[in-house]
Amino acid sequence: MTTTWVPVPEDSPFPIQNLPYGVYTHGDQAARVGVAIGDFVLDLAAVLHDDVFARPSLNAFLASGRARWAEVRRRLTDLLTREEHRPAVEPHLTPRADARLHLPIDVADYVDFYASEHHAANVGRIFRPGGDPLTPNWKHLPIGYHGRAGTVVVSGTPIVRPSGQRKPAEAPAPSYGPSTRLDIEAEVGFVVGAPSGLGTQVSASEFGDHVFGAVLVNDWSARDIQAWEYVPLGPFLGKSFATSISPWVVPLDALEHARVAPPRQDPAPLAYLREDEPWGLDIALEVEWNGQLVARPPFAQMYWTPAQQLAHMTVNGASLRTGDLYASGTVSGPEPDQRGSFLELTWNGTEPVKLPDGSTRTFLEDGDTVTIRGTAAGPDGARIGFGDVSGTIIPAV
Amino acid sequence: MTTTWVPVPEDSPFPIQNLPYGVYTHGDQAARVGVAIGDFVLDLAAVLHDDVFARPSLNAFLASGRARWAEVRRRLTDLLTREEHRPAVEPHLTPRADARLHLPIDVADYVDFYASEHHAANVGRIFRPGGDPLTPNWKHLPIGYHGRAGTVVVSGTPIVRPSGQRKPAEAPAPSYGPSTRLDIEAEVGFVVGAPSGLGTQVSASEFGDHVFGAVLVNDWSARDIQAWEYVPLGPFLGKSFATSISPWVVPLDALEHARVAPPRQDPAPLAYLREDEPWGLDIALEVEWNGQLVARPPFAQMYWTPAQQLAHMTVNGASLRTGDLYASGTVSGPEPDQRGSFLELTWNGTEPVKLPDGSTRTFLEDGDTVTIRGTAAGPDGARIGFGDVSGTIIPAV
Repeated sequence: MTTTWVPVPEDSPFPIQNLPYGVYTHGDQAARVGVAIGDFVLDLAAVLHDDVFARPSLNAFLASGRARWAEVRRRLTDLLTREEHRPAVEPHLTPRADARLHLPIDVADYVDFYASEHHAANVGRIFRPGGDPLTPNWKHLPIGYHGRAGTVVVSGTPIVRPSGQRKPAEAPAPSYGPSTRLDIEAEVGFVVGAPSGLGTQVSASEFGDHVFGAVLVNDWSARDIQAWEYVPLGPFLGKSFATSISPWVVPLDALEHARVAPPRQDPAPLAYLREDEPWGLDIALEVEWNGQLVARPPFAQMYWTPAQQLAHMTVNGASLRTGDLYASGTVSGPEPDQRGSFLELTWNGTEPVKLPDGSTRTFLEDGDTVTIRGTAAGPDGARIGFGDVSGTIIPAV
Repeated sequence: MTTTWVPVPEDSPFPIQNLPYGVYTHGDQAARVGVAIGDFVLDLAAVLHDDVFARPSLNAFLASGRARWAEVRRRLTDLLTREEHRPAVEPHLTPRADARLHLPIDVADYVDFYASEHHAANVGRIFRPGGDPLTPNWKHLPIGYHGRAGTVVVSGTPIVRPSGQRKPAEAPAPSYGPSTRLDIEAEVGFVVGAPSGLGTQVSASEFGDHVFGAVLVNDWSARDIQAWEYVPLGPFLGKSFATSISPWVVPLDALEHARVAPPRQDPAPLAYLREDEPWGLDIALEVEWNGQLVARPPFAQMYWTPAQQLAHMTVNGASLRTGDLYASGTVSGPEPDQRGSFLELTWNGTEPVKLPDGSTRTFLEDGDTVTIRGTAAGPDGARIGFGDVSGTIIPAV
């Protein structure tokens, strides 16, 4: 069992088995790369003497590839576990409470998938009652679309309520105004490190060669704007105002123990989507709304795995760039309290959630704060935590 | 009338009234910013003594804002028209034939609109015969979606035929293979220079403050892949394998004389989409297929203008970044020979185009080359040309 000389509280999301990467500032220092350990952040440029970490994003390190990722992880584990390194390393630990966290990556392209069968079926039942809840393509390919990379923000960034066109079914014409059906989507996102060439395909078995790690994602969604705009070319302004991610990128190496088989895929997917060793991940999510736990979405229930999504995204020869981010789509499980959106939790607003103070809510109101957490099992019984992704709604401009 | 001491052929797309910006290499020189004049490229870093032009993309210059764009344009016009500057400037002209052109911008986000009523109606008639050719939202908002920024390539880049899932209507299940319905979309794209803040809106009247200029776009499309994947979240792999753009960014200042009112918009758009001085543009496109002119799409016929698209794209508070590229969607006019895609030109493959050698074609075959050209009227009777956007299909991997 690996133990560290850093004092790590028993319930910390950041034990020595995790070592997630982020970007932080402390005092007047320029933004730099750090690794979270217990209640501290370790300054990597200072202890590894490598300028690749003295930058305001992880991208340069991510581009260095899998062998280098593994080498740095081994070195950090060594520095943080062997007492002899303590005198040299300890001065470069900053209390996390004193560090300001920034967007950890320069996002290249952002793709959002739709990989939970429970979510897709709930949405189908809500919007196409009586019809088949899944579209005919759903079990043949991981449906996805491109989102706006420029509005991916770090946890804690205030979310301005978006305005735009909405047309309730009963209205004769659309009108302009602030969204009245503002929602969340609790997701897990994957960060591409090593690029691929234009015109080449990346197989599911190459997932670990290209993807560095994972973050939590809140894909804020204005359901009224989305409903009016999305036929025929998909979501646009209903999503593009903001997408929040957690500040710590958890390396795939820390998630090896969380790997599980996804639910059985029937019909069998085409050959390019098959996995020899599946990359389902048992990550337990929690959604908290103004301090109240409202959902526990289980990532292990996702129908399509992130390795299958990667293979699909590149099957047409589309290249990968360092900093590409792709998210799973809303994580929803089979139970009502496992749904990762208020669209589903309140069944399109018809079944309001009751708050502890007796009030009821359907969609988000100004001042509401939503926080998503995630935990996976690690080696030695360790708990691999994700950093929270949190956001508070502020009024429309 | 402005005249230059540079010898400019009468039919040149690049007279002194144009001055489009690109990125080029010549011999062993590092990539740098140049301006096209006649048959030459002018080395801007050399003549303006500004390192912002000694870079492999226009982005740093684009970020400097409208006042600086105008100042540089005035200075270049001065340098190229006053004989006294000739001795100092002439040594920094390179024959265009000797220059290699590169992608002119680092693309931040890429958005594709759907702004031609004729195109949207043709697509509607082809895929939903008997129904209303336009979706109910079409005349209320410029429909758009995000595409893949990382696969935007410069003219001349070979296009690998994409593979993926297709399911013909009569097939019981999808199969994997190279696209058999590979198509083009002739479009005009707009390049954002000055960014905007998250949570703020950009009005149509601020178009010239944020958008630097325009390029031609070929939004390559695999119709069979797109048809199977696009419901409900829009186009993804059917488009993301490649999008080609012309190498020269024509400044809005060179297009002022091409401004026209768009077709009458009925119903009147919501207030945020109204323009005081409309930004319709009379750009005449030509599509050439293996040396044969097959279409003359008229950009002046576009229903939604690029200024309205900008206002729509930011109405929800989405920020703009330097290098954002947004394209118009396929440009199609009312006449059969004004259609900007083979989907429309061949009416979904049912009316093949006949080539001069007697052969017929529906969609693109390996070895086919498509070139799109564009011209607008400039001041002094000048012809403002766009650089060609060209691509040749190479076989699937």
